[in-house]
Amino acid sequence: MRDSARVIAALDWSMTQIHNFGAGPTGLPLAVRERLADALQVPFDHAPSLLEVSHRGARFLEVSTRLRAGLRTLLGLGDSHEILLMSGGAQLQFALLPMNLAASGTATYLESGHWSRTAVAQARPVSRVEIVGSSAATGFTTLPAVGPVPSDAAYLHYCGNETIHGVQFSAPPTAESPVIADLSSEIFSRPYPFSELAVVYASAQKNLGIPGLTVVAMRRDLLERSPRSLPPILSYRAWAEAESMPNTPATAAWLATMEMVEWMLREGGLPAMAARNAAKAAAVYACLDRHDCFETPVAREARSSMNVVFRLVDRAEEPEFLKAANAAGLLGLEGHRAVGGMRVSLYNAIEMSSVEALVAFLDAYAQRG
Amino acid sequence: MRDSARVIAALDWSMTQIHNFGAGPTGLPLAVRERLADALQVPFDHAPSLLEVSHRGARFLEVSTRLRAGLRTLLGLGDSHEILLMSGGAQLQFALLPMNLAASGTATYLESGHWSRTAVAQARPVSRVEIVGSSAATGFTTLPAVGPVPSDAAYLHYCGNETIHGVQFSAPPTAESPVIADLSSEIFSRPYPFSELAVVYASAQKNLGIPGLTVVAMRRDLLERSPRSLPPILSYRAWAEAESMPNTPATAAWLATMEMVEWMLREGGLPAMAARNAAKAAAVYACLDRHDCFETPVAREARSSMNVVFRLVDRAEEPEFLKAANAAGLLGLEGHRAVGGMRVSLYNAIEMSSVEALVAFLDAYAQRG
Repeated sequence: MRDSARVIAALDWSMTQIHNFGAGPTGLPLAVRERLADALQVPFDHAPSLLEVSHRGARFLEVSTRLRAGLRTLLGLGDSHEILLMSGGAQLQFALLPMNLAASGTATYLESGHWSRTAVAQARPVSRVEIVGSSAATGFTTLPAVGPVPSDAAYLHYCGNETIHGVQFSAPPTAESPVIADLSSEIFSRPYPFSELAVVYASAQKNLGIPGLTVVAMRRDLLERSPRSLPPILSYRAWAEAESMPNTPATAAWLATMEMVEWMLREGGLPAMAARNAAKAAAVYACLDRHDCFETPVAREARSSMNVVFRLVDRAEEPEFLKAANAAGLLGLEGHRAVGGMRVSLYNAIEMSSVEALVAFLDAYAQRG
Repeated sequence: MRDSARVIAALDWSMTQIHNFGAGPTGLPLAVRERLADALQVPFDHAPSLLEVSHRGARFLEVSTRLRAGLRTLLGLGDSHEILLMSGGAQLQFALLPMNLAASGTATYLESGHWSRTAVAQARPVSRVEIVGSSAATGFTTLPAVGPVPSDAAYLHYCGNETIHGVQFSAPPTAESPVIADLSSEIFSRPYPFSELAVVYASAQKNLGIPGLTVVAMRRDLLERSPRSLPPILSYRAWAEAESMPNTPATAAWLATMEMVEWMLREGGLPAMAARNAAKAAAVYACLDRHDCFETPVAREARSSMNVVFRLVDRAEEPEFLKAANAAGLLGLEGHRAVGGMRVSLYNAIEMSSVEALVAFLDAYAQRG
């Protein structure tokens, strides 16, 4: 397809622009991608790239320093929280959180879709677990309310945005116990009351760059909960003591996230991201709402601004719809294999011009003969 | 320094070539680095790079398929072993190995330097541990012999090459229990009896590319040892069932390792790597041996071909020596902070021409007035 697209491009540039609506690993802003490519270019003197030097040397430590500073600015967190830069994705956190923070007490969870369910599944083998609110009964098209919480609750865990089911909490739930937020697919999409949360964590491959880095901001008093009986590599306390370098980090992901964070700050920070993202989501939902051929399963108040899920009323048309979208340069619109249908991911890197191209396609599809 | 180097380069190219002898993350072959840079270039149609697409989509699955095929060819392993592509570095394996494989029985270790010691420290909290051979008494300048092994030994773990102390086993130790080899800093530097080993593992940032991927080749029968009580993300069995994609992998590291593995195969595979590496190490050791001003602490039969450690007889000269080497474009020669002195890392990507530049510098240094 790419070769023929290049030929057509000579005739009409606009026909061949590719728009990447994939759910992750997701598109990078072009400026970030160009910087990463530049960082790998082989210079005249064959000097090593940032991926070929010691992670403890001056060149890479500058990346680390800029990354941490940018994250702290965007999170708006003072000395109350430690920022840990870890690996292994959010799923490793699903296991480490109960191992470290619920050695005594009950780990409590809100169940709002696939990812919060997976967090529960990873926690069950290592902790007492209780689900204190679930929207399973609606097929995860609504958000759960917080029910009675046991008095020995070690924490309350929720997933701020469910990538697969397309539901998003407008604000964190409140609870007496420390609240832990998995914000993997929405972090830095809008201002957020980060400082009210005990733990905020996010894998990088949605709004923070490329996979390999997981950012964990944790209230310092919680670090004391890590049992001394854990291997250090699985202990938050030991990670904090090692300043997030107990071993070699995934340097490419750190570099990409540094570029992403600095790009967000240059673009105006979280208020600017929120304005862009609200406009993008509003345009897509408005388009889906105005045509009878589309269905949006999620309740209005639970709709995600990051992952818009929809179906065709005529399910049998969906494969052809996706094929036509791909041919029009609109990539990554397949829904997750667990739920089918379509999904539009609108992470920070997605430009309004891409949304306009999608809306034009959806309008044309709805009005076809 | 880079800018002035560029000016000088106009006068004498050879003066300004940089040679990267760092211990890791280490240099990539120029061809590999160029391919990675190319992969990130923004094309005419803005098509996403390989780091911006789903890890379960056709484009990235080709990377996965080529990576696995290349690894299997280089390892020479048939269906007896599962190849797992994990994250978290070798240190995460230090914890996972005893958690998965020594739930019953004693985890036994050979202690030959910093990294095998660290493996023991990560294992102690989760398993019964016994050190069955140690070279601590010689300051890790020799290799340990295998002493009496308890009858309930779950495995024998050794570190094939100690990056910091510069000692290397010429061949795996023999034992009745399954033998586990941490080959992080020597894998694919030479032909190796991989099929005799129960587990071979290596983090990627030495001979396999950039940090973020850890390759684990494990005899399939051992997968059955993983206790069902482990969170799936910490279970080898579950990783095998998920075909190494329980979650999003560090795609940049997978791509880099695919390029590295294919580069090694194009260059002639392990016999070619072994011939290059033997010649490189012989040239460096011969140079160090012929000058009285250098000291090599490691016993001859234990010398590493990957990490050559040495000192100046006049310790006080070492800072000036390193400064002069840096100015000559010879980077990364500082010894690890744990032992001081100097270290020359000679991983697969290092060219003989770099070794020649180093030897010329060492000769000139030794013969200075």
